[in-house]
Amino acid sequence: MADGADPTRRKRGGGRAGNAARRGTAVIEQSPWRLPVNIDRPTEPLTGEGIEAIHNAAMVILEEIGIEFLNAEALEIMREADCTIDGENVRMGRDFVMEMIGRAPSQFTITPRNPDRQITLGGNHILFGNVSSPPNYWDMELGRKLPGTREMCRNLLKLTQYFNCIHFAGGYPVEPVDIHASVRHLDVLYDKLTLTDKVMHAYSLGPARVEDVMEMVRIAGGLSHDEFDATPHMYTNINSTSPLKHDEPMLDGWMRLARRGQGLVVTPFTLAGAMAPVTMAGAVAQSLAEALCAIALAQYIKPGVPCVIGTFTSNVDMKSGAPAFGTPEYMRATQMTGQMARFYGLPLRSSGVCAANVPDGQAMWETSNSLWAAVQSGSNMVYHAAGWLEGGLIASPEKFVMDCEVIQQIQRYLEPVICDTSPDALALDAIREVGPGGHFFGTQHTQDRYTSAFYQPFLSDWRNFEGWEAAGAIWTPERAHRVYKDIIAHFEAPPMDEAVREELSDFVARRKFEGGAPTDF
Amino acid sequence: MADGADPTRRKRGGGRAGNAARRGTAVIEQSPWRLPVNIDRPTEPLTGEGIEAIHNAAMVILEEIGIEFLNAEALEIMREADCTIDGENVRMGRDFVMEMIGRAPSQFTITPRNPDRQITLGGNHILFGNVSSPPNYWDMELGRKLPGTREMCRNLLKLTQYFNCIHFAGGYPVEPVDIHASVRHLDVLYDKLTLTDKVMHAYSLGPARVEDVMEMVRIAGGLSHDEFDATPHMYTNINSTSPLKHDEPMLDGWMRLARRGQGLVVTPFTLAGAMAPVTMAGAVAQSLAEALCAIALAQYIKPGVPCVIGTFTSNVDMKSGAPAFGTPEYMRATQMTGQMARFYGLPLRSSGVCAANVPDGQAMWETSNSLWAAVQSGSNMVYHAAGWLEGGLIASPEKFVMDCEVIQQIQRYLEPVICDTSPDALALDAIREVGPGGHFFGTQHTQDRYTSAFYQPFLSDWRNFEGWEAAGAIWTPERAHRVYKDIIAHFEAPPMDEAVREELSDFVARRKFEGGAPTDF
Repeated sequence: MADGADPTRRKRGGGRAGNAARRGTAVIEQSPWRLPVNIDRPTEPLTGEGIEAIHNAAMVILEEIGIEFLNAEALEIMREADCTIDGENVRMGRDFVMEMIGRAPSQFTITPRNPDRQITLGGNHILFGNVSSPPNYWDMELGRKLPGTREMCRNLLKLTQYFNCIHFAGGYPVEPVDIHASVRHLDVLYDKLTLTDKVMHAYSLGPARVEDVMEMVRIAGGLSHDEFDATPHMYTNINSTSPLKHDEPMLDGWMRLARRGQGLVVTPFTLAGAMAPVTMAGAVAQSLAEALCAIALAQYIKPGVPCVIGTFTSNVDMKSGAPAFGTPEYMRATQMTGQMARFYGLPLRSSGVCAANVPDGQAMWETSNSLWAAVQSGSNMVYHAAGWLEGGLIASPEKFVMDCEVIQQIQRYLEPVICDTSPDALALDAIREVGPGGHFFGTQHTQDRYTSAFYQPFLSDWRNFEGWEAAGAIWTPERAHRVYKDIIAHFEAPPMDEAVREELSDFVARRKFEGGAPTDF
Repeated sequence: MADGADPTRRKRGGGRAGNAARRGTAVIEQSPWRLPVNIDRPTEPLTGEGIEAIHNAAMVILEEIGIEFLNAEALEIMREADCTIDGENVRMGRDFVMEMIGRAPSQFTITPRNPDRQITLGGNHILFGNVSSPPNYWDMELGRKLPGTREMCRNLLKLTQYFNCIHFAGGYPVEPVDIHASVRHLDVLYDKLTLTDKVMHAYSLGPARVEDVMEMVRIAGGLSHDEFDATPHMYTNINSTSPLKHDEPMLDGWMRLARRGQGLVVTPFTLAGAMAPVTMAGAVAQSLAEALCAIALAQYIKPGVPCVIGTFTSNVDMKSGAPAFGTPEYMRATQMTGQMARFYGLPLRSSGVCAANVPDGQAMWETSNSLWAAVQSGSNMVYHAAGWLEGGLIASPEKFVMDCEVIQQIQRYLEPVICDTSPDALALDAIREVGPGGHFFGTQHTQDRYTSAFYQPFLSDWRNFEGWEAAGAIWTPERAHRVYKDIIAHFEAPPMDEAVREELSDFVARRKFEGGAPTDF
């Protein structure tokens, strides 16, 4: 799909009034769907020597210290690849690592069931996804933190679908613990595939889950097995168990998706001072080593399979040991990892994160810090970009809506037209016409451009204090709450062929009847 | 003063217990006073051709359209300089402008009454000042917007002094409208000079005020007139009346400070779509023209007098015409002006701004956007960096405290040590020692560094939800309110020689007796 095209438009011919909701005009005026391109030169705190030093440290970790692969099949493959296996410890030479990594594409596409929602990962693209995997939920109406339910999850999926600035659906936007773990993936994937038409994710939590999700994505896309395997239609994200360990189910899912040519994202969670060295360069080097060995495995299995290197390097609170997010150290680690990802020629994943417990000022400065770090680092994939609170333990619809306002602004910021210096943009004739002490609003130059000249927020209140007070003196989270309720009230799911929906339903029913997935992972 | 030295320390020998407040340890643990250096390469959206195009447009404005100087003396000086004068319209050739601008230093110092608080403007320094000039005040206890008073102003000055991350005192942090305009400058300057020892500002609002403030700064510094004139001890900031006009009192103050070799900042308020073209390049070009002609005037009067080019280019709300701040267009205009300031070899001033009416999420994403734009643009002087609400119509102590948290984080972000890639920082020995599945907290490498490895916030609450809830579930503005009250309760003014204080007092009394300043400006 060409950038800038609006896939929500293609259904307009259908004539159903409810399409207005999908066009994003029923509730708020939002920015159109597009795949933003990051036009800024990345912020690069590392010198060339610094890049070499971190690369060398990552290679020394892989060559001399090694990473544990808690997966017999992966160990066997690595042994076949002439890596040094010692129990579960895998060591690999830098030549091998670099050869394998050289096989990975620097850019690739993922095509969901609605091909107009295809995304391009890599190059200068920067794409955003919803919050993934919080066990808990908070909203203003509830006023407290509760374990996630299917209904909360469905509502957050509706937000994921509604906002054009959100390009892909990550993991479950909240963990619906009211569904038994054995069948949870079936119900949530059914919800995800029917409530959204964006790129889908599978948790690597055991063979049955991974296979079920691939099958459901295949069915929803109306694809044959060969068509599914031919090009990425979904992805998984695995986390190493830092320090220096990859667990059984993660590696299993990783290899399953690799064999079928689907998207692979590996994101070590290297919290400096806890699971990684207290110094950021050391934490970044360790994170790279943990990620690169998984990518080497995937490339050995399936040369050219698309891989993304993820960063989740942050620091702990020095007082309590609690994780901190959106900190100065987090920003620099993200930028440093961006430099390293370009060094390795791999797309980069980072995140929109905060430690705040409620959608207040702290939440927004921490989230702004992390989102700007994503821009500065040249990130291609921004996970958790909307809806994250409490270090990822809480999903909040108000925070989701607030984050989308910030994400829309970032996407507008990346439009080159703002910095146009053509004669028209320099506006010398208008300046001459208005002259000293005049006003530009009435000029033709302004009238021709004013409706589209500036970003128009949907959540910011730009009235003066008196206007804001007269309208109820509503603070941002309460305004976000209303937008959230409006979106849910007016939500219409994207169209799906009835036969496909039935096939999905039948699959879910059959797999539930079979007992779902083992829960002993 | 060497960067990194802490001027609040030099008084420790005095042994007064209250010094703890000045050391910043009584209420919160804050970062030490230092002059941060911006180590990032600026974000530069303009190509070389774009820079040339904007420069040319600014020159065409100055050569062909002209700027009105509503000041007879300035007109006379410009006539003498062979500019083309037509009534109040002044046109000047680009050769003249560039020659004059070439006289301005790219970096200079301002030395307040406490020489350890000397600041360096220009180069890669990025310094921050308090909010200036809101007519109104809001705090959480009050819960509503009220016109400023002297007490509110004094409290905000105490915050200005208290926070080490604030380097200079801008204009009045709130306009104390309970003091008659004829003597307001005397009372507020007395408060500023006794409650703070940081760099001081004079409003260019008529000869009497400017002369009074210069005299008070001279007295407070214990300086002779020659010593005062020898190097900058204060500064003024003037705003053009956009489009294309400089008013009488602004130019008067500008020339008075120029003659005495004090700091000069000129900041056009070019709101795209209102006082400037709706296109950002046009708004930037107009802003540059308005600023450069004032700098040319100053350099003609006093070659080499230090000048800073300010940017305040933003956009209006397309719906209401209200000013918007911290927008994508604002960020890009700031970055573009930064490129132009470097083209002209002039230090840059920008701002920390927002349109939000209360210190909520919107306030923090707008302020974060503008503060990061200050970093990205290579700004040397960040005005209004703490305490600004409602597009500058409200000062708020909670917002002040929240902004200082963000500013501290930016200053920490700029410390090169975060990105150290020395062998110590790469921590290979620690990684080897800990091994797969271990924990870094117990290692010597961590123990040696953990107290200073990471930024420690004073306002962010990094506890988990349950810990935060148990502590009262306090949202950010309320936490900021408590910090504010604590700081005020424990505030001790910086030391001042009693003879100097009396001389200042006497000066104020005498000038009040004389009737103060005319109020017909």
